[in-house]
Amino acid sequence: MPSPTPAPQVLAFDVFGTVVDWYSGIAREAQALRPDVDGGEFALAWRAGYQPAMRRVMAGELGWTLIDDLHRLILDSLLERFGMTDLTEEQKQHLNKAWHRLDPWPDVVAGLTRLKTRHTICTLSNGNIGLLTNMAKRAGLPWDCVLSAEVFRAYKPDPATYLGVAKVFALEPAQVMLVAAHQEDLAAARACGLQTAYIERPAEFGPLQPKDVSPDRANTRHAKDFLDLATQLAC
Amino acid sequence: MPSPTPAPQVLAFDVFGTVVDWYSGIAREAQALRPDVDGGEFALAWRAGYQPAMRRVMAGELGWTLIDDLHRLILDSLLERFGMTDLTEEQKQHLNKAWHRLDPWPDVVAGLTRLKTRHTICTLSNGNIGLLTNMAKRAGLPWDCVLSAEVFRAYKPDPATYLGVAKVFALEPAQVMLVAAHQEDLAAARACGLQTAYIERPAEFGPLQPKDVSPDRANTRHAKDFLDLATQLAC
Repeated sequence: MPSPTPAPQVLAFDVFGTVVDWYSGIAREAQALRPDVDGGEFALAWRAGYQPAMRRVMAGELGWTLIDDLHRLILDSLLERFGMTDLTEEQKQHLNKAWHRLDPWPDVVAGLTRLKTRHTICTLSNGNIGLLTNMAKRAGLPWDCVLSAEVFRAYKPDPATYLGVAKVFALEPAQVMLVAAHQEDLAAARACGLQTAYIERPAEFGPLQPKDVSPDRANTRHAKDFLDLATQLAC
Repeated sequence: MPSPTPAPQVLAFDVFGTVVDWYSGIAREAQALRPDVDGGEFALAWRAGYQPAMRRVMAGELGWTLIDDLHRLILDSLLERFGMTDLTEEQKQHLNKAWHRLDPWPDVVAGLTRLKTRHTICTLSNGNIGLLTNMAKRAGLPWDCVLSAEVFRAYKPDPATYLGVAKVFALEPAQVMLVAAHQEDLAAARACGLQTAYIERPAEFGPLQPKDVSPDRANTRHAKDFLDLATQLAC
């Protein structure tokens, strides 16, 4: 696929689903706490609350809220449905931080290490800085810096986030590439002038919900995983 | 010296003077561009404009301004005095980015690597995120994350910066330690409840302006350099 623009200087990565496997991580921690709960179903339900919760913030219904706090609001709303109302406050806080303890997909650390040799690599996630930093430290993700909705006081797909990355590095939008496993995230970045790379993560929603990972020609790159992207970018 | 509080979870580092040697770096780049200029005097003059420029922002006289842009304002005001008015725009932009290319003190990379094993290590600098990230990438500074005045929309010594670090990591102020070579920065952090570590950097202002590096008992730690701090914190 021909690249329409010069190589990007900065690669900004979506995190949940693109870098880390939230489905397996949340399912595992829920089931460790409560062996009778269907961990996969619980993970899908928790994640499904994420977009609506962010929309409430963006609509002004909730003030600016960190994802840690949105995760807790959603968790509290799920406890009855999953028969977990008797968790202690300490258990709830621990479970809420399972999002800090997600594992990366197997190609991620090696891929980022290669990509970092020729590019500045940063996160661009709706996750808060503390969450992303704790996750990176535990998983060994070698970010050059951690950028987040928290820095820009706006969630993706608000243009302030994509354009914010370019502004932080005093670059043109086309010198930044968003790397994500979600076409709608990439489309919003493209509308701001960023380059885009789609990453296939067919198991993002677990084994029972296979994901459409077919290419969209509008993206600058389409890669199987981060190692494939590194090869395509000659890293 | 007895530690009044438990070991800090997060170490937040001042950068200019504490982590990197701005005097030598700026002097070297100015002199490379103009061999007839006294590089050391130029470095001191440029740095001396820094606090007054930030005060203009904090007083509301200038809107929120990134340090890259403040550095440029100060540089432009110095060109005549140093006989550099004939620099091209490209040369001025390159010289302004000398602050991105400063070298760390010799103990820094090894010290941070040790400290990182038991603590989350981050910057807390008035420098902007892009500057700090470019500097870290060039110098191999292994930050867990890059925090900056830019994140908190306030410069040190505004309490919003010191308390902002604690808030990012959902910690009490006393679980964060500011590490700096400047007593006034440490005093402001202490007033917010942070732990503090003073680092001796006797050569910060070059060979002609020796610096008082005597201990202040109010600090939690007083260390010769980052290796000494790592030893004191059992890293």
